[in-house]
Amino acid sequence: MNVTHRLTELRGFMDERKIEAIVVGNPDHQYYLSGFKAILYSRPIIYLADNSSTSLIVPALEEVHAKEEANVDNIIVYYEHPEMAHKGTSPFEQLKSLLSKYSPGSKIGVDMSSIPAEQVNIIHQSGFEVVDVGQKIVEMRYVKDSEELELIEEAGRLSNLAVSTSLNACREGITEIEMDAIGTRALFEETAKRHPNATLDLFVMSPSGTERTIMPHVFSNTRKFQMGDIIIHSRQVSLNGYRAELERTIVLGELTEDQKRGFEAAKVAQQNAMDFLKPGVTAAEVDEVSRNTLKKEGFVDYANHRVGHGIGISAHEQPYLRFDNDLVLQEGMVFTIEPGIFIPGIGGFRHSDTLILTKNGSKRITEYPRELEDLTY
Amino acid sequence: MNVTHRLTELRGFMDERKIEAIVVGNPDHQYYLSGFKAILYSRPIIYLADNSSTSLIVPALEEVHAKEEANVDNIIVYYEHPEMAHKGTSPFEQLKSLLSKYSPGSKIGVDMSSIPAEQVNIIHQSGFEVVDVGQKIVEMRYVKDSEELELIEEAGRLSNLAVSTSLNACREGITEIEMDAIGTRALFEETAKRHPNATLDLFVMSPSGTERTIMPHVFSNTRKFQMGDIIIHSRQVSLNGYRAELERTIVLGELTEDQKRGFEAAKVAQQNAMDFLKPGVTAAEVDEVSRNTLKKEGFVDYANHRVGHGIGISAHEQPYLRFDNDLVLQEGMVFTIEPGIFIPGIGGFRHSDTLILTKNGSKRITEYPRELEDLTY
Repeated sequence: MNVTHRLTELRGFMDERKIEAIVVGNPDHQYYLSGFKAILYSRPIIYLADNSSTSLIVPALEEVHAKEEANVDNIIVYYEHPEMAHKGTSPFEQLKSLLSKYSPGSKIGVDMSSIPAEQVNIIHQSGFEVVDVGQKIVEMRYVKDSEELELIEEAGRLSNLAVSTSLNACREGITEIEMDAIGTRALFEETAKRHPNATLDLFVMSPSGTERTIMPHVFSNTRKFQMGDIIIHSRQVSLNGYRAELERTIVLGELTEDQKRGFEAAKVAQQNAMDFLKPGVTAAEVDEVSRNTLKKEGFVDYANHRVGHGIGISAHEQPYLRFDNDLVLQEGMVFTIEPGIFIPGIGGFRHSDTLILTKNGSKRITEYPRELEDLTY
Repeated sequence: MNVTHRLTELRGFMDERKIEAIVVGNPDHQYYLSGFKAILYSRPIIYLADNSSTSLIVPALEEVHAKEEANVDNIIVYYEHPEMAHKGTSPFEQLKSLLSKYSPGSKIGVDMSSIPAEQVNIIHQSGFEVVDVGQKIVEMRYVKDSEELELIEEAGRLSNLAVSTSLNACREGITEIEMDAIGTRALFEETAKRHPNATLDLFVMSPSGTERTIMPHVFSNTRKFQMGDIIIHSRQVSLNGYRAELERTIVLGELTEDQKRGFEAAKVAQQNAMDFLKPGVTAAEVDEVSRNTLKKEGFVDYANHRVGHGIGISAHEQPYLRFDNDLVLQEGMVFTIEPGIFIPGIGGFRHSDTLILTKNGSKRITEYPRELEDLTY
């Protein structure tokens, strides 16, 4: 991944604010700035940039991986085996050592909303002033470049495939996780054909039934589908680090009249918000269009989350399309549109699609029918 | 999950240290203390406990879920829809409001290594002294209770099933992610039968070939297996929040003589460390047993990580079995044993198993052959 233009912009910002260096803890920011993504368990990875060089502090078992993939000037390694212990066993000692070349009292920027408090303490204790630069990186990530958009569009196509395969397997007696796995298998086979040596990541969940669909964020479990179930099948596919999201509310058998009204209201609210989405409108206005539809239908009190969110490297990223965000949207931003209503005793209803803002409107990159008759199994 | 005994211990510690309340950011600590696990994207969840009550700050779309699953006295909700905005739209405002009942200047404990710096700043700015209690919670999690061990053992059995199904599908031309998916599908089907309404989480990776197996932590990709490949197939299965790990190095076709020596050395090092593992020995000694074997075989310089780690709620958790950890191991701790060697130009070799420390030794809860002849496809 080409990160040069990103670094140039960041360094301009650092120069303006007289920030000597930045220390970044958020793994998604690290990927954006370096092209390196590790599987994170217990070993911290720290990114540092100043006006002339960039560094990544990694554990020994990531050394080869980082050297292969990270666009940084220096890979600094910390070790957990005695033969190399003299070179440093702690990421924090390596951080202190990197910081020691800056003048005491100078400003170090960090991503305050993600970086662990422990790391900020180290910077403080080393005699530096800590300032928050997290929002700058967040904002740099708002508008995607052409390389990013290409990956996101392909992630959209792969989402379509996975969702349609899972939904075609929907039947009485199958479990949430089994339906998920069927689409996932197809996704893997197709990605293998189209993208040799690609890295795929994914998230999928399919809460089912009246009680589970009103909890919009739960892990799929082993509940078996029953006739009359509502199922919310939600997927994100990430191709080489960039994501798209597609979600459909489907039905096994027949809905009650109340459920039909809920389904239709959520569907129309989504359609209206998607039709409205374009450069020049504000995030809050998109949310409002959707909420006004739901209000007219009498469901707005059950719509307990924003209409959508930015998507790219992160599963959810800013800008958020919510009532209190007056940001004006721009070409090249990518959003999910997903108004949801969750009604105790009746069920949850939500479709989600991913859209790219174009010059005069938006382009939907996920595709699957949205009508009840097409989503009844 | 019964958390009463955990809270009692934690409150005793808080009392001793004159800590008024604790604020916990680490999601795994939150699960340990409350039994509540959310899918985390962009909306913070914050846990707070004092000597008389426990609270969880959640976004509106987790309200029903939290009320159903969290063992806490108060669920505090923040909102992102205008109809409820008057009750608070920010988790940080809710945190400030919860903190306002404590006397200024009193001590608030946090898990410094995980909690975002932003949240610690809020506590500071509200006039409290912040102290680190992260290690106390980490240490409480060292020894598992019977309910935890039961889940971990069953996660081990499910890992066995998933690994054996994936490995039986190994053949020329199949990709890493496809081999993963085949075992995952079987895992889902079996779990659905044995555990209705269970929540399953999993991690799986299968780096293959000389270049990728020396990077022990990479996401599976779409590389196709070729004759002569080494493949490291690694799985973790989490059943209702508790994990086991099983990993095997397998071969498609035949190894070179150098590769055979590497394979054997890693296998024997693992066997020796597993045989040695028991209450009363130190973490460092377990690592040393494995490293001594690898030294004798001439491979120790390629063994760039510790011999194993604790496992439970987290994929990796303390205690770590590394050269500089003198902790004495106890009955009820659970570890992976996984010495790995990663030799540029030759390949990577690592088996991993999960073991529970018993009164006089240890019990291996993952099962799959470990010999080259049984792992050749």
